[in-house]
Amino acid sequence: MKIFIAQQNYHIGNFDYNIKKIIDAIETAKAAGGELILFSEMSICGYPARDFVEFNDFIEQCNAAVEKIKAHADNIAVVIGGPAKNTEHKGKSLFNAAWFLYEKEVKAEIHKTLLPTYDVFDEYRYFEPAFEWNIIAFKGKKIAVTICEDIWNLGDNPLYRICPMDKMMSQQPDFMLNLSASPFDYTHDEDRKATIKANVLKYKIPLFYCNAVGSQTEIVFDGASLVFDKHANLCKALPMFEEALVEIDLNDDGTIDAPIIEYANRVPDKELNPATLEENLNISQVYDALILGIRDYFQKMGFKKAIIGSSGGIDSAVTLALACDALGAENVRAILMPSPYSTNHSVDDAIQLSTNLNNPYDIIKINDIFQSFLKTLDPLFNGLPFSLAEENIQSRSRGNILMAIANKFGYILLNTSNKSELATGYGTLYGDMAGGLGVLGDCYKLQVYALANYINRNKEIIPPHIISKAPSAELRPNQKDSDSLPDYAILDKLLYQYIEKRMGPAEIKALGFDATLVDKTLKMVNNNEYKRNQFCPIIRVSPKAFGVGRRVPIVGKYLN
Amino acid sequence: MKIFIAQQNYHIGNFDYNIKKIIDAIETAKAAGGELILFSEMSICGYPARDFVEFNDFIEQCNAAVEKIKAHADNIAVVIGGPAKNTEHKGKSLFNAAWFLYEKEVKAEIHKTLLPTYDVFDEYRYFEPAFEWNIIAFKGKKIAVTICEDIWNLGDNPLYRICPMDKMMSQQPDFMLNLSASPFDYTHDEDRKATIKANVLKYKIPLFYCNAVGSQTEIVFDGASLVFDKHANLCKALPMFEEALVEIDLNDDGTIDAPIIEYANRVPDKELNPATLEENLNISQVYDALILGIRDYFQKMGFKKAIIGSSGGIDSAVTLALACDALGAENVRAILMPSPYSTNHSVDDAIQLSTNLNNPYDIIKINDIFQSFLKTLDPLFNGLPFSLAEENIQSRSRGNILMAIANKFGYILLNTSNKSELATGYGTLYGDMAGGLGVLGDCYKLQVYALANYINRNKEIIPPHIISKAPSAELRPNQKDSDSLPDYAILDKLLYQYIEKRMGPAEIKALGFDATLVDKTLKMVNNNEYKRNQFCPIIRVSPKAFGVGRRVPIVGKYLN
Repeated sequence: MKIFIAQQNYHIGNFDYNIKKIIDAIETAKAAGGELILFSEMSICGYPARDFVEFNDFIEQCNAAVEKIKAHADNIAVVIGGPAKNTEHKGKSLFNAAWFLYEKEVKAEIHKTLLPTYDVFDEYRYFEPAFEWNIIAFKGKKIAVTICEDIWNLGDNPLYRICPMDKMMSQQPDFMLNLSASPFDYTHDEDRKATIKANVLKYKIPLFYCNAVGSQTEIVFDGASLVFDKHANLCKALPMFEEALVEIDLNDDGTIDAPIIEYANRVPDKELNPATLEENLNISQVYDALILGIRDYFQKMGFKKAIIGSSGGIDSAVTLALACDALGAENVRAILMPSPYSTNHSVDDAIQLSTNLNNPYDIIKINDIFQSFLKTLDPLFNGLPFSLAEENIQSRSRGNILMAIANKFGYILLNTSNKSELATGYGTLYGDMAGGLGVLGDCYKLQVYALANYINRNKEIIPPHIISKAPSAELRPNQKDSDSLPDYAILDKLLYQYIEKRMGPAEIKALGFDATLVDKTLKMVNNNEYKRNQFCPIIRVSPKAFGVGRRVPIVGKYLN
Repeated sequence: MKIFIAQQNYHIGNFDYNIKKIIDAIETAKAAGGELILFSEMSICGYPARDFVEFNDFIEQCNAAVEKIKAHADNIAVVIGGPAKNTEHKGKSLFNAAWFLYEKEVKAEIHKTLLPTYDVFDEYRYFEPAFEWNIIAFKGKKIAVTICEDIWNLGDNPLYRICPMDKMMSQQPDFMLNLSASPFDYTHDEDRKATIKANVLKYKIPLFYCNAVGSQTEIVFDGASLVFDKHANLCKALPMFEEALVEIDLNDDGTIDAPIIEYANRVPDKELNPATLEENLNISQVYDALILGIRDYFQKMGFKKAIIGSSGGIDSAVTLALACDALGAENVRAILMPSPYSTNHSVDDAIQLSTNLNNPYDIIKINDIFQSFLKTLDPLFNGLPFSLAEENIQSRSRGNILMAIANKFGYILLNTSNKSELATGYGTLYGDMAGGLGVLGDCYKLQVYALANYINRNKEIIPPHIISKAPSAELRPNQKDSDSLPDYAILDKLLYQYIEKRMGPAEIKALGFDATLVDKTLKMVNNNEYKRNQFCPIIRVSPKAFGVGRRVPIVGKYLN
């Protein structure tokens, strides 16, 4: 059987755009003699559509999309995904569904059983789990269709009490199709291959896995769709981070005539280890995910041009380099805003960076504005000593300048805060925390350095001095990050244990971290939830990013 | 049987604080001869603890709390709530549990079956649903214990496929206990009475319902715990928005010797009707909820003093009056920041307001700062005409001033944006959208006027001119809200249909709204999701507030 996999980048709620993309692939597959074409989860409306599915109007548009696509499913079977109404008068009103379209009819509607409701996922918010499981007969074969999480319930400690493939095996399916929208993180590619292979080893039939690609606000879907034959050989691996349409010929005996793709069954050292940072964190994948995250945010929002506050520091340098790669250097404007406390090398380094990148930049000194605030506030501040308030005035004046230029000329402000800063609250709300998209908000400081080195892998783009100098916010004379924060080499590892691994203070101390430092750091993290709550979306590259996937009570009194 | 209900205000994660409160109530009940005392859902850790429960350390602190409380449950049965470990190696690792403590032992552990996962609720993110149901034998009686949502699954179109009380009725319980953490909205009090009564009518045994009270960041729990006898008479109604500890004597036959409390079975007109706004929206309840929301935010965050930008407009006036009531006028500082485009009456009105409220205020003119921005940006703006950029510079300069004073003196900035503005994006990020807590963000403009009239019900607090004048942002000469927005009397009703009722464009137009206006308004709402995403927590008073309970994809292309 000639089967196509369409790994596509959808736009949530943009039905015309998605339908055209789906129909184009169907027609291409038909022209090549395809008998079945598999799309990803929620392909007609994009994933995650979130509360849009609570609108009956939205569901009706999904239904209309299925009707339009059905007309093209004549002599080819089309498997697409979307929300479907639950016609029983109990349970949630929708299913996360797949439709098997053939001969211009809906031959079957499949419902997802296992509804991920953790981290960035909220599926039980909207959907009723499936409670019946049937295979689909097609051209003398029996097909088991599952949706994403449905095949992720293996192992000794499964998250769900039932396993939909187990329910279908008594009907003796010949092969499995899985529609997915499974997001990237730097551990995901290996987990995915291992999980899909484990299903094939368990059920001993081929598996065609089609994953979505593209970034939706903060969540990056990496594609990397896979095909395993019945012997659990990897026969096809679609690219990461880009669209693809591929053909696979499945033999009647469940084998596939294609070279077996070898891959390492590497178990990454998931403890953040700066000595091996690049290897462990798949830095090239992280880089590609960030590029896709920036590019899709702009494309899907209808924007073209970015503006970035370029301080001469490592975070803004890496953000600028990423933005230039994603959007084109001519579309990225750097604004250098030295204050009285900025060092000369900051401006020089930032100029050198933009010279290397060949992107436009301007220098705007903030001292007049800063002095004007101080003068205006003088009757209230009344000679009190320089403090955090004055530091923040500078940072917020820069935010105001960047937003004013953005408003005037139609730029989108990219935020440059890293995960270590966001975790500890080392940033100014409405100042350096301003922006529409957080490019580095899921990268610890050490990872930002790794990205800088990766960016410089072929030639010098980021000036070496930006990488080598000690980090500083430059908001008071001779300020250094290390005045307020522990050394990043320690801090990042500590934060990783708390945030990614969800270890408590006793467990982290048992790893050898200084007890006082652990308590102080966890307190900083929890005290600053109110700041992160007002932060922009962060491109997610780790298994636990700040934002929709991490929900912490602001008024909570825990470890703080 | 002498039963106590303890309606208490917990602090999430503040175990010592919660445990003391619980033990104090137990001791008081014991001293009065109480045989059983009922607390609310998740009483030991506060609700919602959100991702804190993903920390094993947090769960261990919960277990330790149960141990401490157990020691006081000697000759009184104590029913408390918290997260419990799932000891089976499948399904989620926790239950939303209640413990029945007696004779210093855990006599029973009850698990919640129906896990609300909609609006502000995320319970299936953390908890496995119960799969067995047992009544508890105590002093010759059989008790059915349920947790919150467990008794909300009645009606023709239930949200869940099972009903835990149905499962327990074969064991012939004598009465029901329900531990709740059920938040306020302006329709909730009536829904609650109707639902609890419906359970008693169905199962024909008394029901003791204990609800949490107090605000947790944005979610206000209103208490209003209830007791119905077996004949479905309301025998006890605890107060709204405050703590209470009450005693009820339950007779052996399921009756209660107490005067029957009459209450209206009013079905409120849930369509937002400005002509009857006060009645429909329970404006006095909304007022009380906002006061509790402000007070608990400050108390639980450890803050005392608020700062507010006082413009002479209705939103800041109502916010200021609420803050003075919640925190004491001496703790609320108003900052008047006229710009060149402010009218004289704005300053006069704001001064009169603070004179009436007797709270401290300062006047800080922003023109020097504004001019300094214009001069600094002149080389880039290069004579381009005055536009939104210049309007936003003023708004953000005010934000910067307010935050600078807040940073210098330890104030928390209260935000004054209303729901109509937030819906349409009629506000400036980092400017008038700055602040730590959104006081009016769940009140449409018409409701803000209703609040103003309510505040003035006994004497003039808000000057009449603030209520009567046309709303304006005063960021350019002679600006009026009506230049950019439809009349609030139409806009608010349109927004209500879309936001609260989740009606699509065709349905709203069918109600008689102008088609062009509907399309334009829904587009504004969806285009501005990125702004709301960076807004502070909003005190929730409606069934659908912006914030954690409304999750919309920022890059979505739906109706925009």
